[in-house]
Amino acid sequence: MSHQKLKVAIVGASGFTGSELARLLLNHPDVTISMITSESHVGKPFSDLHPQFFNRLDIPLVSADEVDQQQLDVIFLALPHGVSMDFVSKWKDLGAKIIDLSGDFRLSSKEVYEEWYQKKHSFPEGFEGAVYGLPELYSKQISDANLVANPGCYPTASILSLAPLFAQQIVVEDSVIIDAKSGLTGAGIKANATTHFSNVNENFKAYGIAGHRHTIEIEEQLGGLAGSSANVQFTPHLLPVDRGILVTAYAKVTEEMDQEKLRSIYQDFYQDKPFVRLRNQAPGIKDVRGSHFCDVFPVWDERTNRVIVLSAIDNLLKGAASQAVHNMNLMFDLPEATGLNQIPLKP
Amino acid sequence: MSHQKLKVAIVGASGFTGSELARLLLNHPDVTISMITSESHVGKPFSDLHPQFFNRLDIPLVSADEVDQQQLDVIFLALPHGVSMDFVSKWKDLGAKIIDLSGDFRLSSKEVYEEWYQKKHSFPEGFEGAVYGLPELYSKQISDANLVANPGCYPTASILSLAPLFAQQIVVEDSVIIDAKSGLTGAGIKANATTHFSNVNENFKAYGIAGHRHTIEIEEQLGGLAGSSANVQFTPHLLPVDRGILVTAYAKVTEEMDQEKLRSIYQDFYQDKPFVRLRNQAPGIKDVRGSHFCDVFPVWDERTNRVIVLSAIDNLLKGAASQAVHNMNLMFDLPEATGLNQIPLKP
Amino acid sequence: MSHQKLKVAIVGASGFTGSELARLLLNHPDVTISMITSESHVGKPFSDLHPQFFNRLDIPLVSADEVDQQQLDVIFLALPHGVSMDFVSKWKDLGAKIIDLSGDFRLSSKEVYEEWYQKKHSFPEGFEGAVYGLPELYSKQISDANLVANPGCYPTASILSLAPLFAQQIVVEDSVIIDAKSGLTGAGIKANATTHFSNVNENFKAYGIAGHRHTIEIEEQLGGLAGSSANVQFTPHLLPVDRGILVTAYAKVTEEMDQEKLRSIYQDFYQDKPFVRLRNQAPGIKDVRGSHFCDVFPVWDERTNRVIVLSAIDNLLKGAASQAVHNMNLMFDLPEATGLNQIPLKP
Amino acid sequence: MSHQKLKVAIVGASGFTGSELARLLLNHPDVTISMITSESHVGKPFSDLHPQFFNRLDIPLVSADEVDQQQLDVIFLALPHGVSMDFVSKWKDLGAKIIDLSGDFRLSSKEVYEEWYQKKHSFPEGFEGAVYGLPELYSKQISDANLVANPGCYPTASILSLAPLFAQQIVVEDSVIIDAKSGLTGAGIKANATTHFSNVNENFKAYGIAGHRHTIEIEEQLGGLAGSSANVQFTPHLLPVDRGILVTAYAKVTEEMDQEKLRSIYQDFYQDKPFVRLRNQAPGIKDVRGSHFCDVFPVWDERTNRVIVLSAIDNLLKGAASQAVHNMNLMFDLPEATGLNQIPLKP
Repeated sequence: MSHQKLKVAIVGASGFTGSELARLLLNHPDVTISMITSESHVGKPFSDLHPQFFNRLDIPLVSADEVDQQQLDVIFLALPHGVSMDFVSKWKDLGAKIIDLSGDFRLSSKEVYEEWYQKKHSFPEGFEGAVYGLPELYSKQISDANLVANPGCYPTASILSLAPLFAQQIVVEDSVIIDAKSGLTGAGIKANATTHFSNVNENFKAYGIAGHRHTIEIEEQLGGLAGSSANVQFTPHLLPVDRGILVTAYAKVTEEMDQEKLRSIYQDFYQDKPFVRLRNQAPGIKDVRGSHFCDVFPVWDERTNRVIVLSAIDNLLKGAASQAVHNMNLMFDLPEATGLNQIPLKP
Repeated sequence: MSHQKLKVAIVGASGFTGSELARLLLNHPDVTISMITSESHVGKPFSDLHPQFFNRLDIPLVSADEVDQQQLDVIFLALPHGVSMDFVSKWKDLGAKIIDLSGDFRLSSKEVYEEWYQKKHSFPEGFEGAVYGLPELYSKQISDANLVANPGCYPTASILSLAPLFAQQIVVEDSVIIDAKSGLTGAGIKANATTHFSNVNENFKAYGIAGHRHTIEIEEQLGGLAGSSANVQFTPHLLPVDRGILVTAYAKVTEEMDQEKLRSIYQDFYQDKPFVRLRNQAPGIKDVRGSHFCDVFPVWDERTNRVIVLSAIDNLLKGAASQAVHNMNLMFDLPEATGLNQIPLKP
Repeated sequence: MSHQKLKVAIVGASGFTGSELARLLLNHPDVTISMITSESHVGKPFSDLHPQFFNRLDIPLVSADEVDQQQLDVIFLALPHGVSMDFVSKWKDLGAKIIDLSGDFRLSSKEVYEEWYQKKHSFPEGFEGAVYGLPELYSKQISDANLVANPGCYPTASILSLAPLFAQQIVVEDSVIIDAKSGLTGAGIKANATTHFSNVNENFKAYGIAGHRHTIEIEEQLGGLAGSSANVQFTPHLLPVDRGILVTAYAKVTEEMDQEKLRSIYQDFYQDKPFVRLRNQAPGIKDVRGSHFCDVFPVWDERTNRVIVLSAIDNLLKGAASQAVHNMNLMFDLPEATGLNQIPLKP
Repeated sequence: MSHQKLKVAIVGASGFTGSELARLLLNHPDVTISMITSESHVGKPFSDLHPQFFNRLDIPLVSADEVDQQQLDVIFLALPHGVSMDFVSKWKDLGAKIIDLSGDFRLSSKEVYEEWYQKKHSFPEGFEGAVYGLPELYSKQISDANLVANPGCYPTASILSLAPLFAQQIVVEDSVIIDAKSGLTGAGIKANATTHFSNVNENFKAYGIAGHRHTIEIEEQLGGLAGSSANVQFTPHLLPVDRGILVTAYAKVTEEMDQEKLRSIYQDFYQDKPFVRLRNQAPGIKDVRGSHFCDVFPVWDERTNRVIVLSAIDNLLKGAASQAVHNMNLMFDLPEATGLNQIPLKP
């Protein structure tokens, strides 16, 4: 590229999405990482927190206050839910585009947010301009956005598994069940009983049954595609692996169906989407690990008259960091695959 | 016990169910292991195949032909599907009771078997006397049986998750989805691409989508409870762990429901079943590992009007070997918990 | 048994050794668990902390103060280093025998303890009567003891790997290297960066290099066997598994050696020790998981003139809880294998 | 680059090194993958064998016979030991440079090879021109080579852990112990008892004790650095992870030493080696996973007067595929880091 590199800030260095953003952006040909912030580790080299970066990204961490004083093109917010909104409010006129990886602007309104997150929203005006950053659905809107709400990890895999059917408006109401399984990094870097090795290793269990807040994110998006409301039964489970989400989605359809027709619906929907791979067999999460792919495999069960769709992503990448980079590429008119060509790391 | 110990044979030493049977029977106070057979390892000490038994169970393996010449009380068949039936036919008049851990006599008839197993059945007469060995449903019949068909691992967890609802005849037809996840030992001891470490570790995927043969076993049993036919969508997945099955079952019901009522239905159904634990939170597979427990947790989702039930077992134990020992206890009028009091091994 | 059951207390319920003690003692035919203490969870059922015990051991946790008011036969201290000593001091005249699973009385003196643990010792008188509870070396002394210092996990595997050579006084000074690897439960139940799943899973690293406090415990014991001082290079590593220690020990010897002679030295030393298994091949940690075994495999390398010994234990059992039960059996003249006959759980 | 891209062939597609080479070369800016061979899968798309490449590298596999008919710049041999030599012999005059990832040309002579590999060598002339492809030691010779013998995985980590000391000629003879631990991919893609998930998962054991053939490779290289013979005790172990080698090396030195002096020896030796990182703490294998780094951490133990060095690599990359690409870069005068800038994938 002959033009100048984009100056980016990563706000929130200590978590997994912060470090994955740094990993991708460090090798992105059109980007310079100008700053990485962390309130609790100011002055420490970034590689102290994430030793895999030793000798490659040792820049000292700074306070988020320094964001105001920099000429930045784009700010990635890798912060917890409820924290991002204050920074968006503060930095909205700074001239930099903002990509928020938290859940603060993913839903349709302050009301819906407050009901499902059980938390007051401090910047409801933000919902207006925010674009839901799922490139397969909204690439045009993302290009024009100043604030992108990067989708949740479960919603990304869930929405992409069923979007073609909802877009056709052929899903039977109340028939959708999304049984989802995620690697442990989805639970975050904080040390607690949930993330203790001995509770995860050789274990497997469900959580957030009948009330996980990603439910509403999925319902709003799928409903939006169909032009109606969508009702989804969503159950997440914790896998004893680092990375990966597998969604097993079930739905009844209002039309006569067979395997061929089902497949062509998916083929049509995803034909120009370079990172959704329509597989010929059930994808494993390791087939996409370390990559930006979402692998999708729809099956028609003629015995039960039901659609079953498997979809697999890397929760830290297509479910977070690489999706954010994809959004950045769209927002700055870069070729959408720039910096995202990694082949999955397997085994 | 003052009476004589039961003389048992384990037919089929090389697999996981064979070694788990040996482990349980070796410490069972009322049992003597008279012989263990293996056609391919005749003469080798049992502990050569399973070094965990070194110095504790080193008896030489013998051919199955020697079964005919022994005075045995009970024969455990730890053989592949399609192989057991020939031995049952051959040994039916030997005087010993037979507990078959394969799928050969679990279904209702030769016709159903041949459709789902894609294999000719050589001893259809066996179906008549065979009792489905799920003690929570058929303890009386098991007590009187000479041939017990030990249930499949997935069916055990699946049936126990929904039996109380089907017994009440309140399940909406066509609403049942069973999303099941199993540890790798369910795939057997044979070395192939499926069981290669690098394909399992850090991976997760579905298999047998829309056609797994455990589907019919579940449908027949649940249908039997309801006095009608049952239709079930069953999807198994492979977990990167050694042991454990978690079933996430979904159903709609024909009656008004709430959490309390749901729970009392389960409480009533399982009140005298010492190995089904009605949990107060979502069970993990590690909560039951190494034990004969089936942990069950029913949830009513009032938002979607749907029942979600989690159930967890150790696939090699409650899903195979300890269930067989439980059946033996019933068949010989021993206290049903004899030799099955292990607390789960966690972590 | 016709005599009365032993009344035992487990002091410290929240950790892994506490729950493993409970698991073993619950099925021990000569024991009644009278009480389990936990200061931070008084009143809660024990199974709330360890759900694997649900429906089997739901007794409410009590304060350690209640120990004074009970007629107990034996008290197991499953407490952190530095905490046990105060209770030993307090309860020394209570009439109950004490088995301390911490490191507080394992070393020879207050001075050595304070140097290696960097902590003041509050009850140095305790060292006098304390017996090092390794049954393979001190079964006689343990039988007579009122206070047993249960060995560390690494020291158990390390000492048993080299004891036969040190007892023969044929180890070349300064030649011993013990490269040890432990499962994560060795790091305890506390949630921190070290025990976070994502730092353990798919990872492996050394820690405590050149200064781990188990070094001195090993040196004192091996030196004691040889009647001289011993110098040992000890390096522990963290394995991404729940349980198990494998020690790879290296030593030069002062005598001419060959494989046969080496093996007979080990055979002689361990011939009456029912839980040390002299293996014919390299043991894996899974060969002993869930059992009280220590598997040992000595190799003579004629190319390098060096002895290499592999030894494997379950760190929570032979390295902690089952060793404590073994000590209890000896202290109360029970058959030493009582309650310890579990076959390893594999896979 | 303005010049033409290098045309490369990967011979041997089915294993892990074949797929890792493809992954790296596909994104290498100066390379075109002209062909990938597999005798048993001719005609199949490469991605059929390795589904992670689906939609990205679907070229049909061809027979090795087609190598003769192509104008190639470089041929990577990703073949088993004993198979490569025939192809090297056959293709030596083809004009293409050859990088052999097998062990066939790593040792000094036919005699040494045949003793340690227990196999006749069919092309002893090859030893003469072959250069040992460890860039940190032989970058100059590699630049000029037509045949590079890519080092073994264990030798790479082992040699780099001790090279600075041997180069200084200060290692005490007979004092070196290398206790090495490798992830399962080191055992290859073949399905057998060793690679069965249930034998690896939650397990850990030593193998090849006192006779592994990587011993001689390490001894020849370290001896060569010192200008004398080297004697090494090498013990490999199998880790329950996919990737990674950690070496714990022990040595006595002939000079007075302290931590600072030790560190400066390593600093001097590795100052211009971009992929060896001299760490300030014990490296974990996950700190290098998915990257070309070798992380080294030397410790002086003043209590025992011994050097302990930890070194970590990704066995499939720095221990195989990325090392081969590094060698290619040197052989074709490309900047040595080209295509090797991946940050480790953690977690």
